[in-house]
Amino acid sequence: MEHVEASETKGKVIKCKAAVCRAPGEPLVIEEIYVDPPKAWEIRTKILCTSLCHSDLTSWRMKLGPLAAFPRILGHEAVGVVESVGEHVEEVKEGDVILPVFAPDCRECRGCKSSKSNVCSKFTGGGISTGMPRDETSRFRDMKGQILHHFLAVSSFTEYTVVDVTQVVKIDCEIPVDKACLLSCGVSTGLGAAWKVAKVEEGSTVAIFGLGAVGLAVATGASMLGASKIIGVDLNPEKFEIGKKFGLTHFINPSNCGEKPVSEVIKEMTEGGADCCFECIGLASLVEDAFSSSREGWGRTVILGIEMHGTPISLNPYEILRGRTVSGTLFGGLKPKSDIPILAKKYLDKELNLEQFITHEVSLNEINKAFDLLIQGKSLRCIIWMDK
Amino acid sequence: MEHVEASETKGKVIKCKAAVCRAPGEPLVIEEIYVDPPKAWEIRTKILCTSLCHSDLTSWRMKLGPLAAFPRILGHEAVGVVESVGEHVEEVKEGDVILPVFAPDCRECRGCKSSKSNVCSKFTGGGISTGMPRDETSRFRDMKGQILHHFLAVSSFTEYTVVDVTQVVKIDCEIPVDKACLLSCGVSTGLGAAWKVAKVEEGSTVAIFGLGAVGLAVATGASMLGASKIIGVDLNPEKFEIGKKFGLTHFINPSNCGEKPVSEVIKEMTEGGADCCFECIGLASLVEDAFSSSREGWGRTVILGIEMHGTPISLNPYEILRGRTVSGTLFGGLKPKSDIPILAKKYLDKELNLEQFITHEVSLNEINKAFDLLIQGKSLRCIIWMDK
Repeated sequence: MEHVEASETKGKVIKCKAAVCRAPGEPLVIEEIYVDPPKAWEIRTKILCTSLCHSDLTSWRMKLGPLAAFPRILGHEAVGVVESVGEHVEEVKEGDVILPVFAPDCRECRGCKSSKSNVCSKFTGGGISTGMPRDETSRFRDMKGQILHHFLAVSSFTEYTVVDVTQVVKIDCEIPVDKACLLSCGVSTGLGAAWKVAKVEEGSTVAIFGLGAVGLAVATGASMLGASKIIGVDLNPEKFEIGKKFGLTHFINPSNCGEKPVSEVIKEMTEGGADCCFECIGLASLVEDAFSSSREGWGRTVILGIEMHGTPISLNPYEILRGRTVSGTLFGGLKPKSDIPILAKKYLDKELNLEQFITHEVSLNEINKAFDLLIQGKSLRCIIWMDK
Repeated sequence: MEHVEASETKGKVIKCKAAVCRAPGEPLVIEEIYVDPPKAWEIRTKILCTSLCHSDLTSWRMKLGPLAAFPRILGHEAVGVVESVGEHVEEVKEGDVILPVFAPDCRECRGCKSSKSNVCSKFTGGGISTGMPRDETSRFRDMKGQILHHFLAVSSFTEYTVVDVTQVVKIDCEIPVDKACLLSCGVSTGLGAAWKVAKVEEGSTVAIFGLGAVGLAVATGASMLGASKIIGVDLNPEKFEIGKKFGLTHFINPSNCGEKPVSEVIKEMTEGGADCCFECIGLASLVEDAFSSSREGWGRTVILGIEMHGTPISLNPYEILRGRTVSGTLFGGLKPKSDIPILAKKYLDKELNLEQFITHEVSLNEINKAFDLLIQGKSLRCIIWMDK
């Protein structure tokens, strides 16, 4: 679309370009869409860049269940500039740089008010909904007038989107937008899991199952927190060299372990089990491996994601009884509005390296390349630029 | 047996009375047995009284598996006086009043040295062994010379037993022995689970599944820690009146819930789920109910016991991901040698009521009555006196 001043578009429907997912597993279609103005408590945002996260892939492939909704605008990791705001929105104004986030932070409910939680009790943050959080309706239509579904109440694979005020985080405009974009989901999730959920202690041992961007962000977080041994587990042997840059000290390729379970290898490397284990793939079976790799007495397993088809997590009762703990977390236990700015500041203070998560960059027109790269395991994060 | 002075028996085999479990599920047989002198790091103890815990019942019934070992001397909740000590034992001396405990506390390993754990990395505390911890052999023989197996390296259903130095706790002799006896297993486990594992906070909500002595001890602990709502769940409707004395404020009989799952009832009573849920029966299916009853964001489920046949614990991945935690614990996360004296002091300071856990008393000769009472759900704790 042509560049328009905020004053020109405010209150009007915007016509812009988007990558629409019309059917499960099929290439996204770049087309023009209509984006409605924000309703009360909503913000219409011009997306500057977005990136592809594994949850986008999962929903893209989904053929059945409440998450399979087409046509849809996927994408939930992004950075944008506020174009206009609806009634009651005071937290941000036109021109502010914001991150949309899938995790709501209403700041009013028991969950959001508590320092112990990042789970909003009032809003579910999209979740299995396909519309906006407050009225379940869509702000998107295609040129034929057909409704386009939202995704996680973010939908960032479009030049303009509408998000709820509970799902935006204002950030320091000094941070380069592509780095800021990473803090919108995957990297923050990994950092938060080490920092807020496992509370990794100095000198402790850590095992990370799955070395995608989330797993490598866990390694980064564990390294920043002073873990002495950070063991990565991945079937891709190239991940060790890559992982070293993120703080990995040891690597296990399960294919090379023969008959020996990975948990036994980890127990040998850590005098009985890792202090903290992280499952970063979302496989119930891998949760069990991670759990068995954790130390008795105080070992903690953190689950960062799950299979969408909901396979139950099965735990050995004898193992849990010997003082082990399992915790699940969304968005790494981070409260978006207060914790993302802390991470952004760490980046600006050069305590946190975000650059190395960005392995590829494409334009919105080339978004299907980003999908291919992630599917092939070639990318960590591919930045999708809107105006290139 | 006739009363003998320590000096007369030291270094000699003692002939005394014991309740021997000769076959699964059959009444114990009161007979004379031989008890060897303690070897190095061991302590021979005259048992003053013992009580019956559910784990005794479980092992008594066990027909298969490593825990099914007969003939055996069961019992692991007791108080005794040191008769003699083996080489290297400096921690206690003849005449000291001690509690034997199934949970070892070697004070030397990484687990015992850490403030985060009560799980000894060096000794397993009997566990599935049927002998003494260091050499796996028995100190008991019957009159025909047949070996009698140990149980949890305690075996307290005998006038004399031998325990490892890592499994005794010296206590203040001011505390009445029957009250002290309770601190040796079940009651401590419940108190510790609330105090050390769940870390129940003032004003928080608690749900307890199973109101035997362990569950009621959780209620006692939660009440001492200031929980505002303590909900008991039990199929026996009489447990509410009983439970009130232990701090219970609400009660759910699952039989009266109709189609509604107990977890839904608890969620309604607690604005979304209890802060802390405790599974005090040892049923994998009940762990799942407890887990589903815990609050998203920070809800913690504590597992205090398990089925001996090891049914896996199955958890809903969507529920755990929304910030829930599950922890298992042995002996309520208490370090026996340091934490039991703290509980004993709370009793002496009248902060902890132990009397109400004792519902029955019998002599060793009547020990099978204690079994009947527990099986019928009539007793919480039945004290079995050795010299009555």
